Amino acid sequence: MKKKSILLVLVLALAGLQCYAQTGSTEIKEDFIPSTLNQPGKEYPMVNSQGYARFKIDAPQAQNIEVSLGLGGAKGGTPLSKVEDGSWMGTTAGPLDEGFHYYHLTIDGGVFNDPGALNYYGSTRWESGIEIPAHDQDFYALKNVSHGNVQQILFPSESTNTSRRAFVYTPPGYGKDSSKRYPVLYLQHGWGEDETAWSNQGRANLIMDNLIAEGKIEPFIIVMTYGMTNEIKFGSGFRNFDIKHFQTVLVDELIPYVDANFATLADQSNRAMAGLSMGGMETKMITLNKPDVFSHYALLSGGTYAPEEIKDKSKVKLIFLSCGSKERPDGIKSSVEALKNAGFNAVSHVSEGTAHEFLTWRRAFYELAPLLFK
Amino acid sequence: MKKKSILLVLVLALAGLQCYAQTGSTEIKEDFIPSTLNQPGKEYPMVNSQGYARFKIDAPQAQNIEVSLGLGGAKGGTPLSKVEDGSWMGTTAGPLDEGFHYYHLTIDGGVFNDPGALNYYGSTRWESGIEIPAHDQDFYALKNVSHGNVQQILFPSESTNTSRRAFVYTPPGYGKDSSKRYPVLYLQHGWGEDETAWSNQGRANLIMDNLIAEGKIEPFIIVMTYGMTNEIKFGSGFRNFDIKHFQTVLVDELIPYVDANFATLADQSNRAMAGLSMGGMETKMITLNKPDVFSHYALLSGGTYAPEEIKDKSKVKLIFLSCGSKERPDGIKSSVEALKNAGFNAVSHVSEGTAHEFLTWRRAFYELAPLLFK
Repeated sequence: MKKKSILLVLVLALAGLQCYAQTGSTEIKEDFIPSTLNQPGKEYPMVNSQGYARFKIDAPQAQNIEVSLGLGGAKGGTPLSKVEDGSWMGTTAGPLDEGFHYYHLTIDGGVFNDPGALNYYGSTRWESGIEIPAHDQDFYALKNVSHGNVQQILFPSESTNTSRRAFVYTPPGYGKDSSKRYPVLYLQHGWGEDETAWSNQGRANLIMDNLIAEGKIEPFIIVMTYGMTNEIKFGSGFRNFDIKHFQTVLVDELIPYVDANFATLADQSNRAMAGLSMGGMETKMITLNKPDVFSHYALLSGGTYAPEEIKDKSKVKLIFLSCGSKERPDGIKSSVEALKNAGFNAVSHVSEGTAHEFLTWRRAFYELAPLLFK
Repeated sequence: MKKKSILLVLVLALAGLQCYAQTGSTEIKEDFIPSTLNQPGKEYPMVNSQGYARFKIDAPQAQNIEVSLGLGGAKGGTPLSKVEDGSWMGTTAGPLDEGFHYYHLTIDGGVFNDPGALNYYGSTRWESGIEIPAHDQDFYALKNVSHGNVQQILFPSESTNTSRRAFVYTPPGYGKDSSKRYPVLYLQHGWGEDETAWSNQGRANLIMDNLIAEGKIEPFIIVMTYGMTNEIKFGSGFRNFDIKHFQTVLVDELIPYVDANFATLADQSNRAMAGLSMGGMETKMITLNKPDVFSHYALLSGGTYAPEEIKDKSKVKLIFLSCGSKERPDGIKSSVEALKNAGFNAVSHVSEGTAHEFLTWRRAFYELAPLLFK
């Protein structure tokens, strides 16, 4: 609890927000507004300025409804209660962390989504999403700046015998000057997510647009594809994970397609790979296996590199390791220290007050982007 | 019923399928397979070769579950019953029309989506989707051909004071020859849908890819944006609909942005507008208001033109009117006759065996595309 308190103070100092408690004993401010991730015209779910979430579900004959999100019961959910108009309502027992959260409803023993919220692919299903406004949300806001595009491509994959989908972020002005070519970041989602995650939950395109508008980075292309080409069981399955399938799709099929169809700088020094969580595990395996393909490596809440794992130091231009302060920041920091001592250009980033969730990765991406392709 | 029977015979003749009945008295073939629109790894909902759909929902303590789709009760739904393993199951009382259908569940009085199915935006909410394999599904199948991209763009809109989203289909090879420029079709969704509909439900990108691969059309660009910029109540609200808001976004904001950022042929003769249902109503209003902007007009289950409504015949290169055979094909056909008699290049298309649903519009689009920009 002491660690949590220190972090809380840090967050509040950064945010300049009024202090709030972590338990339900504090008074809940009645300044709830619809979550920014609601379906058009939907009032619920709502969030307040303290980070509480409030849910309202219309199902008058239901026996029991619980929201998977919250700080309530043993499972950490929020039970809803029947209210006067026949609907079910409930408020989280405490404030949630800032940023994006997946959740679902359990209605009479079955798992369903909240009809008020937009859906996001996570946990191998489309889940409901809610957004607790973060004190630093400006960096991923939709602003009146020039916007890049997010293109859905369908690329041929012989190894999996189908056309596979990827999304390609091209920066503002891409294609206007036919002689201009761009470096490329291959950016992977986590376990149970898919190629939609980094744009939808991660807002990587808006973060790029804003960084470019502020002149903080040189524009680059981002490519996002599905990383679970072979089945991976969460947890213990990782140990037996065979990277060969996805590595073939990424290195032998997707990269040649992107280099043939987009204005890329198609060499190792202009190619980066990054991934969050399981995508970090994949990034580590593939970058170590293919030192001639990528020069910049980033693991976002996705592990560390030991200096002795990297055969040829001269081929690595950047190693970026990050996580949330509620994960294991010490491991990230000590790994970066060891890498620095061994002569690598290594950088760590810790997202204050966040756990293994998307605000951690939005922030990490915001820190990583300006370091790439220098 | 006689009309239905004739159509049924027609469909079966076209399909070369074995005959099946329209009522529940026929034996249901136990060859159910998962719908192609299920979430990854989900077995239910299922469809069989006759067009029946079967649902299975896990919610052991529920009191009542009904699927909005089917030929069952007064409301046309399919009630589910509790089965041995505690889940709820049910099969439609008869075969459904071929193609795509929206649906949802009513669980204990509340509206939710089927956790087994992917979601599609319709009726101003994300609904569950199911696909009854059509005899002619080949034309919109994902094939091993060169694929165009679907790009999400965010364009500045002064009139609505925000960055608005559109999707732009660019054909295979777009951008490779910097001197090549393309005509543009502006393609609108129906009431309660949004700019995702024509790619997700309509598969317009795959229909284009296939037509281009077969050499049946000259490639063009398609632009799809949100058409409900001002609130429209379904039904009677259409009568008081003011097209000004959307027309401003489309003509004064989106078209200049597309012409500035894509390799377009930016003149009237190379610009078409088409829309389905409410999008047809918008297409009619805007093409009549702006004869110098568009030269090709298409209303898909979205009304008709009378010759006297068009001031300058010389500016109109094509009028395409279509609907499903279960809508009002006579109105479409007589309108096209009148237009032809008045000297217009007018074409009608009737989708056999379908109603006001997306297979009707996939087929219409497949017929329309080769007629554009000749």
